[in-house]
Amino acid sequence: MLGMADIVLALDFGGTKLAAAVAERGATAWRSVERSLLPRGVDAAMAYAEMVRLAGKVLSGARPAAIGVSFNGPVDPLAGMVRVSFQVPGWEAVPLAGRLTAEFDAPAQIENDANAAALGEARFGAGRGAESVLYLTVSTGVGGGVVLDGRLRRGHHGLAGEIGHLCVEPDGPRCACGRRGCLEALASGPAIARHAREALAAHTERPSRLRDLPDAALDARAVAEAAAEGDALAWEVLEGAAIALGRGIGSAANVFDPQRVILGGGVTHAGERYWSVVRSVAQATALAGDTLEIVPAALGDEAPLWGAVAGSGSAGA
Amino acid sequence: MLGMADIVLALDFGGTKLAAAVAERGATAWRSVERSLLPRGVDAAMAYAEMVRLAGKVLSGARPAAIGVSFNGPVDPLAGMVRVSFQVPGWEAVPLAGRLTAEFDAPAQIENDANAAALGEARFGAGRGAESVLYLTVSTGVGGGVVLDGRLRRGHHGLAGEIGHLCVEPDGPRCACGRRGCLEALASGPAIARHAREALAAHTERPSRLRDLPDAALDARAVAEAAAEGDALAWEVLEGAAIALGRGIGSAANVFDPQRVILGGGVTHAGERYWSVVRSVAQATALAGDTLEIVPAALGDEAPLWGAVAGSGSAGA
Repeated sequence: MLGMADIVLALDFGGTKLAAAVAERGATAWRSVERSLLPRGVDAAMAYAEMVRLAGKVLSGARPAAIGVSFNGPVDPLAGMVRVSFQVPGWEAVPLAGRLTAEFDAPAQIENDANAAALGEARFGAGRGAESVLYLTVSTGVGGGVVLDGRLRRGHHGLAGEIGHLCVEPDGPRCACGRRGCLEALASGPAIARHAREALAAHTERPSRLRDLPDAALDARAVAEAAAEGDALAWEVLEGAAIALGRGIGSAANVFDPQRVILGGGVTHAGERYWSVVRSVAQATALAGDTLEIVPAALGDEAPLWGAVAGSGSAGA
Repeated sequence: MLGMADIVLALDFGGTKLAAAVAERGATAWRSVERSLLPRGVDAAMAYAEMVRLAGKVLSGARPAAIGVSFNGPVDPLAGMVRVSFQVPGWEAVPLAGRLTAEFDAPAQIENDANAAALGEARFGAGRGAESVLYLTVSTGVGGGVVLDGRLRRGHHGLAGEIGHLCVEPDGPRCACGRRGCLEALASGPAIARHAREALAAHTERPSRLRDLPDAALDARAVAEAAAEGDALAWEVLEGAAIALGRGIGSAANVFDPQRVILGGGVTHAGERYWSVVRSVAQATALAGDTLEIVPAALGDEAPLWGAVAGSGSAGA
């Protein structure tokens, strides 16, 4: 039987979906992957049971040498505990690592998804070859992680890489966290949609194809598509988000001076013009200037899974 | 003779003064220290010769096992080269480490002064016991350094800890670096003096003891003293600087989540009220909240020298 001791089980508990995969240590492709959408109204126990089922399928009888877990919410990696999920009820203070160890007879390491994705991109994706990486994911929120010398830096309170709450505009809009002018309040998907609504309401005289959309369809993707098709109002909204993101990246770069910044998440698919503004503002803000590398994420949805592989079997710090 | 192999020579090339000291490895007090003020018009060759003289005095015939150097300007620590001094001419591309090694027959490690001070405070000063430290010095400029696990992180381009150029107010005043709203342009000593002049000119109706000062005497210290004596205009100026510094600290903390922030430099002696604003704004900005420790530097002028000791004999990264 193919090297049982060398198999890693990678699990990704997302807010709306689950994924389980198996890879051999050192491999850069999965031996097997299984995914599942979570139904509405699911709770932690149901999600856990479904994940155990997926894991059983990908393992097909093998025992993993280690388990790596990405979790969509705050965790305590050293204690192996989930603190809470903001999307699925019942995850409060669940000793997830211990349960998985009991279930699969292997050491388990859990990590929040932004940190897992950062580690995955740094080791297996767009960060390969860089000694220091700042990873950002820009979607519903803005999260991220810091990887130095191939090792995740979680920070003293587990908050490293939380540049979504870097203050980029002191008098800017209120963030969900209660602060003002956080990067997340200016550059996330919901922030872009909100700013588009505000711009449409404030400038009723200006034409915009966004006016033709039903309100529920006015999201960051719709803004990016309209901007790409020449809609001036949509571009101004998107440009504001790109400027804020560029400022946040540049300021963060001035703090620990990473070699490479990796941008992932749905909003970063907003097109070349968006990227061009993000890059130029970030490089103008960073003292490193255009020697600061800013590149798209390479692993897409699989970044947390690969991070789970990279983090498995290491307690980290 | 007392352990020749265990003596470290620490040198501090400042912009206006020099210091040389000798300590035994592992000691926390100097065996000998010598200082010298640089006369106006001094050049690199004269400063170097004077430093060699000071070093000879503190060594008094002993051979050091290692040499650590703090230099007031950009350096290339890995190549052992000074890039330039902004205060003393003639330092362009000087192979300082190699010269000192030839002079004293010991390996030499050079570091810019903000990084050296960061390392000194982290290992010997206010950072003892903390696994991660952000050090800031607020004086003519705003510089700093990052120390993780007792090791200086210089960053990929040698720019880690340069939070003086974190953007804290996008539409703020122009910084010497050409950018707008840099922390340095809002919180440094010269920035405080400039803002005081602007406030006096903009509000000619407001009384302020600062109006009685000759222009040359209107510096950050004078503003802090007037504020401490109840001068409302002076306090508003100082408070603005404290708010900017707090924002910068809080934003930097959200990037790599240090355990402790250490503040040094002349401006940070501006009094308890200043500290109280810096702390409260920083902790309100940082996700870590009031668990983010913010403490005064402990080593004063000697931080770079102690950093030179800590950095000697290690190539670092």
